[in-house]
Amino acid sequence: MKNYFYKCFDCNTKYSSKEIEENFIYLCPKCGKAERNKPLKGVLTIEYNYIEIKQKYSKEKFLKLTPGEFWSYPFLWPIKKYPDKTILSRLKLNSNPVQHILIEGREVLVFDDTRNPTLSYKDRASSLVAVKALELGVQEISAASTGNAGSSLAGICARLGIKSHIFVPSAIPEAKRIQIQLFGANIYLVDGSYDDAFDICLEISSVKKIYNRNTAYNPLTTEGKKSAAFDMFIQLKGRLPEFIFVPVGDGVIISGFFKGFYDLKKLGWIKKYPRLIAVQAQGSDALVRYIKTGTFKFRNATTIADSISASAPRNLFMAADVIKKSNGFAVAVTDSEILEAQRIISTKSGILIEPSCAASYAGYLKMLKSGSIPERSKVMLMLTGNGLKDTSAMIKWNSKPEIYSFEQLRKLFRMK
Amino acid sequence: MKNYFYKCFDCNTKYSSKEIEENFIYLCPKCGKAERNKPLKGVLTIEYNYIEIKQKYSKEKFLKLTPGEFWSYPFLWPIKKYPDKTILSRLKLNSNPVQHILIEGREVLVFDDTRNPTLSYKDRASSLVAVKALELGVQEISAASTGNAGSSLAGICARLGIKSHIFVPSAIPEAKRIQIQLFGANIYLVDGSYDDAFDICLEISSVKKIYNRNTAYNPLTTEGKKSAAFDMFIQLKGRLPEFIFVPVGDGVIISGFFKGFYDLKKLGWIKKYPRLIAVQAQGSDALVRYIKTGTFKFRNATTIADSISASAPRNLFMAADVIKKSNGFAVAVTDSEILEAQRIISTKSGILIEPSCAASYAGYLKMLKSGSIPERSKVMLMLTGNGLKDTSAMIKWNSKPEIYSFEQLRKLFRMK
Repeated sequence: MKNYFYKCFDCNTKYSSKEIEENFIYLCPKCGKAERNKPLKGVLTIEYNYIEIKQKYSKEKFLKLTPGEFWSYPFLWPIKKYPDKTILSRLKLNSNPVQHILIEGREVLVFDDTRNPTLSYKDRASSLVAVKALELGVQEISAASTGNAGSSLAGICARLGIKSHIFVPSAIPEAKRIQIQLFGANIYLVDGSYDDAFDICLEISSVKKIYNRNTAYNPLTTEGKKSAAFDMFIQLKGRLPEFIFVPVGDGVIISGFFKGFYDLKKLGWIKKYPRLIAVQAQGSDALVRYIKTGTFKFRNATTIADSISASAPRNLFMAADVIKKSNGFAVAVTDSEILEAQRIISTKSGILIEPSCAASYAGYLKMLKSGSIPERSKVMLMLTGNGLKDTSAMIKWNSKPEIYSFEQLRKLFRMK
Repeated sequence: MKNYFYKCFDCNTKYSSKEIEENFIYLCPKCGKAERNKPLKGVLTIEYNYIEIKQKYSKEKFLKLTPGEFWSYPFLWPIKKYPDKTILSRLKLNSNPVQHILIEGREVLVFDDTRNPTLSYKDRASSLVAVKALELGVQEISAASTGNAGSSLAGICARLGIKSHIFVPSAIPEAKRIQIQLFGANIYLVDGSYDDAFDICLEISSVKKIYNRNTAYNPLTTEGKKSAAFDMFIQLKGRLPEFIFVPVGDGVIISGFFKGFYDLKKLGWIKKYPRLIAVQAQGSDALVRYIKTGTFKFRNATTIADSISASAPRNLFMAADVIKKSNGFAVAVTDSEILEAQRIISTKSGILIEPSCAASYAGYLKMLKSGSIPERSKVMLMLTGNGLKDTSAMIKWNSKPEIYSFEQLRKLFRMK
């Protein structure tokens, strides 16, 4: 008897792992719905037998693990069979994600997910999905993507020798397309939007029995993302920050991240949740609006922070729920605040981040200014993706410096 | 009394660390020369009191260290004073560099330096230089660079709160320029070539007493790069491969890499050297020619593998020497062999590499075909830089896939 089961986020119906996994079910069979331009309904979550885990395993033992080696606590994953250690070591995440940095006299913690196998947080989800595929004996995985999830899946699949099929909108930026291609994925430029890519990817995957990794749709994408909470817990020796700023687009990262803290609380290893602050771009603020009004309204997202650009966040409802449960809130920042934050974080931390994750620092500054969080709070910023994933964008926003002759340089350095 | 001294590679003169470091001397005071379009003369190397180290420290203890934490063996570095652990942890390199991969039925080891702080091997040199600057109480570091060394220094300096001055040729690719800028470095686009940038950088650094990191010129650039040998030794529990393929441009990586094995041999912790195979691009093969003819001849380098493009390799003589000492050889590969190797390695390993380091695999294939190394040899490929450092180049060489309609996709998957 395996130690976990599935539960619908919306209707709370419980399902055995056998029922869900062997039938390649993704959303709740009772209430699940994937409609165009709408958040998903019936997203499945995973629950463990926490009482049994508590009896067999201690917090002290857990805190001695190495960050980034997610397979070292198999009892907290919906996996029955792992590949051998040599294979697993290829999936090792950044083993040193928490950094202390000093910005304008304030000490801030950052969580660096820019050095994972394909340089983003998304590798946490791709890894779990890929390990499950191997367990199920599936040789092919598919995903619809605007770029980053696709390159993550392609890279992780390459590491495990699995074939990947990535469906992207035809307008995908070339830098993102090339990453997917170089990892040897089958890439399909779909004549249409991300939503079109999502739909045709589901259709083909279902007919052809290809395991699907569409974000939020496959419950393991949310579940996989919880490992960041564990890595943070381990590296900080159990002393979690009070506020954690999380960039939010489709809501899967923040939902999955919270799930880690949920597991820890269920195990009695933490007493209360860190407060999760969702930061969105002003041009892509569906979650901020949903929390304010209680209803979702589709609005075309436009922001330079493309990894958090989501007109209809797939995991909107769960994201709103975890913010409430953690006593957090949601805030929107402008594109120019994001770009300025990107410059500051890269300069002060030496971690080259993409605009999307700079939103976390922009949100922090905004909350400080408005007095919503006290000056001396213990704060963590989630840095979810490497800036090199889209240098073309950065080139656009940072003007070229002057060209100098030797004489001009000597003058500049006051050598006369 | 400190445990190390400097020694000239060319004339063997020995110098105390005090004499060299306190006077900001870089090349040998007796025979050193930095001339345009020529390899450097009088590059300094560093020697330790190996007998004393052997008495105090054991191989067994060394093999228990964690890869990537170079400060954990302070006795093998020319550093008298380290910053505290919180600061040092920001410099942590990839802790899991050795991966086993399978390509066309052959097991190959790769050494993944694409997940270091700024995603390249150069971070090994920049880190040591920066730690030395802190020890010397210097607040500013300079470097001339075609891009990668500059972004490495800029990123490492940002992590330590040191000001960096990076001199680059005005034709620097924008993707490389933007990395340096975002790390908050002072970047100077010099109206001229890399050699011009090198010259004016030295002139200004000398007059303004700015600590200089020009590659090969500062002996700590070569010395810093030895940590890869130690990381490999640690992760492989002392069982080194027989052949190691190293991409070679200016010759600093291969020289520094060898220095690590030299130290290990001096300590009696290894009995013989792994054989180092230098791989160059055919359009930038100064080392291959030098080994064949015994003389250096300037020839304008042209190759798509820009990180190993060097018309006058600064550390040519040392590179040739370490190849001889390790019983290795040098080989050149074509640009198209490099691009094909890049595709294969990225696909098979899930490690997105830049063309330059793909040269290592191209060289391996060439040596296999020519029978120069036996089929079943234990082989390691050095992967020295992340492919995302220059996606624009990759975009140029990988054609865009077709755009499909839903109908076309259904047909493609034989759904009718």
